[in-house]
Amino acid sequence: MGNIFIIGAAGKMGKWFFEYFYNIKYKSNSIENINDLSVGKIFLYDIKEIEYSSSYKDVDIIIANSISESIKLSDVVIFCTPVNEIINIINTNADFFRSRSILIEISSVKSTIHRILSDISTDRDIVTLCIHPMFGPGASTVISTNKIISIPVNKNKSKLEKDIFNKIFPNFNKILIENPEKHDLAISVVISLIYFINLVFSKFLVELSDSKEFKFEDNLMEFFKKISGSTFKIQSLLSESILTDDVSLFLTLFINNDKSIITIKKYHQLFNNLLDKIEKKDQEFIKKYVLSTRNDIKKDIDINRSYEMLYKFLNS
Amino acid sequence: MGNIFIIGAAGKMGKWFFEYFYNIKYKSNSIENINDLSVGKIFLYDIKEIEYSSSYKDVDIIIANSISESIKLSDVVIFCTPVNEIINIINTNADFFRSRSILIEISSVKSTIHRILSDISTDRDIVTLCIHPMFGPGASTVISTNKIISIPVNKNKSKLEKDIFNKIFPNFNKILIENPEKHDLAISVVISLIYFINLVFSKFLVELSDSKEFKFEDNLMEFFKKISGSTFKIQSLLSESILTDDVSLFLTLFINNDKSIITIKKYHQLFNNLLDKIEKKDQEFIKKYVLSTRNDIKKDIDINRSYEMLYKFLNS
Repeated sequence: MGNIFIIGAAGKMGKWFFEYFYNIKYKSNSIENINDLSVGKIFLYDIKEIEYSSSYKDVDIIIANSISESIKLSDVVIFCTPVNEIINIINTNADFFRSRSILIEISSVKSTIHRILSDISTDRDIVTLCIHPMFGPGASTVISTNKIISIPVNKNKSKLEKDIFNKIFPNFNKILIENPEKHDLAISVVISLIYFINLVFSKFLVELSDSKEFKFEDNLMEFFKKISGSTFKIQSLLSESILTDDVSLFLTLFINNDKSIITIKKYHQLFNNLLDKIEKKDQEFIKKYVLSTRNDIKKDIDINRSYEMLYKFLNS
Repeated sequence: MGNIFIIGAAGKMGKWFFEYFYNIKYKSNSIENINDLSVGKIFLYDIKEIEYSSSYKDVDIIIANSISESIKLSDVVIFCTPVNEIINIINTNADFFRSRSILIEISSVKSTIHRILSDISTDRDIVTLCIHPMFGPGASTVISTNKIISIPVNKNKSKLEKDIFNKIFPNFNKILIENPEKHDLAISVVISLIYFINLVFSKFLVELSDSKEFKFEDNLMEFFKKISGSTFKIQSLLSESILTDDVSLFLTLFINNDKSIITIKKYHQLFNNLLDKIEKKDQEFIKKYVLSTRNDIKKDIDINRSYEMLYKFLNS
């Protein structure tokens, strides 16, 4: 692969990709099928301090001072920054990409960036990968079940894009989504909505701690953890976990993905509807609602197995 | 303990308690500290068929035809039915409880039933336990970390209540909550709200399957499972799991617990507020919202540890 340049290296996913390529460079883990991949220098750039870099005393790991200079020296440039910054950097540095180099971007919203990638891939002799890792920075850099979505960019280079994607991520679970619109719509459900619900849940718990009704407990969080069972444990673990993500991810999900607001509003409408029936104590409606939802979900999913899986986790 | 009578034995928690007492009776598992507990006959009653009972060929396990006759013969009567039914049964059978017998009820909402228990405990020579198992029917009948909340009923019998509770559930994690109002308020957060959010989430996924935008996928659930990462997996497992519960639990949580509507509305207000800011693309507000929520949560909780725990589960 030659030299690698990670832009946004201080962020959590930047660090993940650094470790991934570092492991490939030194074959220091058991990733299969990577023996034909060779990594030269690894350039790291960020406007923030790249804290982990100080623990690597290695002439091949270089903190870059200039984006353009490092782009000129690199065969693979990977963007781990918010979309707006990717666009800025590409616009001001398009001339510096090496011929036949590879540009990878991993953002969570694709509609805008996909057009930019498409343009540069058409205009120049470079290959662009529009991918979305469906795992967080806590994921192993070895485990092969990590999922990555890819969206084809340039029809005339589709085989090249596919070959390079397979070469760089040989053992991953690779999922193709045909176009950026479909990607953004799906992401608005499987990420944005869930981040929204859980962010509000955390905020709700914080506000509750200050509320009159709950003043009987000095440490309300501790009280809830102490008395609660499985459902609260899972929901709060999830809502705490999403808070470890970079703030820029929340902004990308909520503001840059224009499908998110539509999706969240759809959920909101159902929320309002059920809340209204509960206020009216409409027992028959709620009964039918639970039963019909259960029946509909059961058409596709073995809910008893889901229950067992959760309990397996909780008992572990 | 003598004879046990389980009312509502066909339900999931009824079955759980049957297994718990059956294991004690035959010392067939490794529960410690139960050697001094002896179980005589086990009477089972339900208006529905008690399916599991047919696999026990045992003269000491008896399907009861009459509630009153079985109450007369029992030393422990445990109610695993909705609150309204507990009240009906107690009202029509109060005269039949044995002197010094034990009445246990396990419902998820306590304000009303606590008064009834208090009355019968004052009027008669029986001991009442107002408890709430904070685990589902999938929990082991052996593992000692199962949590049970108890609420004291009768001040003049508080030592008796405590001793009996400890005797019957020696190895459980027992949590005392001072009064039924505090119980119902806490439950509205740790159960009702979470059931509500997840029930709406399941309904949302069902409705999405029928929507225009997603008609590109024949099996939308499968598509989401295929492309999604950790957050969706956890949220959907949770929302599927709660659907395995009896419908009566949802009604109890949403309608009988009058704190639930207040709690859900509080969450709803925060939901509306954040949604509004997203519609207005108020980047600064969202940034501060995420940061301040994270800081507040971090005062009480190690969110990195929560994240690691979730990933440990997902990688397992």
